[in-house]
Amino acid sequence: MLDAKQVTIVGVGLLGASLGLSLRRAGFAGRLIGVGRGSAGGQVSLDIAIQRGAIDQGVTDLADAVPGSDLVILGTPLGTFESLFKQLATLDHPQLVITDLGSTKANVQALAEKYLPEPRRFVGSHPMAGSEQQGPAAAQADLFDGNKPCIITPTSDCDAHALAMVRSLWDCVGMPILTMTPDDHDQQVAAISHLPHAMAVMLVHMAQQFGAWDVASTGFRDTTRLASSNPPMRLDIMHANRQALARALDAMAHEIDTLSAKLSDEDSTALLAYLETAKTKRESWLEPDSK
Amino acid sequence: MLDAKQVTIVGVGLLGASLGLSLRRAGFAGRLIGVGRGSAGGQVSLDIAIQRGAIDQGVTDLADAVPGSDLVILGTPLGTFESLFKQLATLDHPQLVITDLGSTKANVQALAEKYLPEPRRFVGSHPMAGSEQQGPAAAQADLFDGNKPCIITPTSDCDAHALAMVRSLWDCVGMPILTMTPDDHDQQVAAISHLPHAMAVMLVHMAQQFGAWDVASTGFRDTTRLASSNPPMRLDIMHANRQALARALDAMAHEIDTLSAKLSDEDSTALLAYLETAKTKRESWLEPDSK
Repeated sequence: MLDAKQVTIVGVGLLGASLGLSLRRAGFAGRLIGVGRGSAGGQVSLDIAIQRGAIDQGVTDLADAVPGSDLVILGTPLGTFESLFKQLATLDHPQLVITDLGSTKANVQALAEKYLPEPRRFVGSHPMAGSEQQGPAAAQADLFDGNKPCIITPTSDCDAHALAMVRSLWDCVGMPILTMTPDDHDQQVAAISHLPHAMAVMLVHMAQQFGAWDVASTGFRDTTRLASSNPPMRLDIMHANRQALARALDAMAHEIDTLSAKLSDEDSTALLAYLETAKTKRESWLEPDSK
Repeated sequence: MLDAKQVTIVGVGLLGASLGLSLRRAGFAGRLIGVGRGSAGGQVSLDIAIQRGAIDQGVTDLADAVPGSDLVILGTPLGTFESLFKQLATLDHPQLVITDLGSTKANVQALAEKYLPEPRRFVGSHPMAGSEQQGPAAAQADLFDGNKPCIITPTSDCDAHALAMVRSLWDCVGMPILTMTPDDHDQQVAAISHLPHAMAVMLVHMAQQFGAWDVASTGFRDTTRLASSNPPMRLDIMHANRQALARALDAMAHEIDTLSAKLSDEDSTALLAYLETAKTKRESWLEPDSK
């Protein structure tokens, strides 16, 4: 069980509120404080999160939550992190452990190192869970279930207590933990998550360009599901991981050339092998645990 | 109701057998004959299709089915069509109407015109339905449900009785009918179906190239679902629609350049608009009938 008396979740959107529900379901007995914006929208989110049982109390100022907390979890959009780290620097205390739920890691690690007085107590996290839905009303206690991993990106010199605390958080909600460097994380996630999102968006633009909406069916629907995710959030992620995504897009453009060459080849052996390899690789990935 | 005493379905795989089940569910009272290969595998398929109630009788020779039939439906892979049209030419009679379930249309129309003594009684069909599953055991009476359209590609001089018969077939199983030219069909379907399949396959190869399997999650799973479809069947479709698919792949490569330029632009307004347009277009497509 997570050994903390008080945990602060900054941002009680889908991920933050689901994490609160998931901790409660796991039997976590400490206090959960949510931090929301002071604006009307933020207050509404905090109220919903309290009603759902995701947090015990909602505050609009980090200063009302951080001093008594053992763990702070940043669950707001990546674009807010710089200002949050600046504030955290003024509220830091020797028992404080900080993690985040951001979809990119190298830039978050860089911000922690730039602003925090003791960045060794920061350990980045990226739980591989999500939904197109948003906000605390859509939160689910089982959002982190199903053997999807949480990637953590501790530095080689990180604080042992901080690392243990963050590992314990993800153990508690039942996610398998994968450890990697921030750069490896960003490139792998660009290939497996940000590139598929970009492809989904581009396929929708292709349907428009070819005037082909009337003939679109279930295959198109599933392949483009990610194009319905929240545009400002996606923009945030694309910018934060711009370089790794650009490399993945270059690799995809090169792959299109490869496939086009196979397609124009009269001998179809290579194209068939290419299709069969994809099917086999995908199915051996799906098989172990029906992710 | 379909006005036919006897219908022959050539190929009792997923589509052919589902069509038989769907006609029966709609109350079609005529005779349904399935044609399978003479080999052991073909005989097994015919037996399963009979047990499932998809056909009344199975034969291994077109000559035992076509003479007494009002309608012949070609439901075998595209690669078999040339030989089937050659055989049909020898069995043709003045009441015979012919259609097919193939995923491409210009090449099928060309074969009909090359081989059939009266190609005006051929009207191509492409029901936009399918599944990764195969064979008559996976057939479903509701495979053609859900407002997915059937595209038909009659020539301007086609026989009126043949056109009415084929329209009646798709009305009977409940599919909305879209009429277009074979070339328009092939380009639109390349953009909306064959390109998404190619993208799914390439994304799997990207995951392999970047060594990113451990971090793949539900978004990747859905975006790559089509990569699990049957490779020989997909190869068949890719070859049959090679030119239109090549144009769609070129357009996608160009789209990657467009997106990459937006991504490297410091001003993110254009990228946000690009994401928002995709979300809006996709959702206005989904909305009318939750396809």
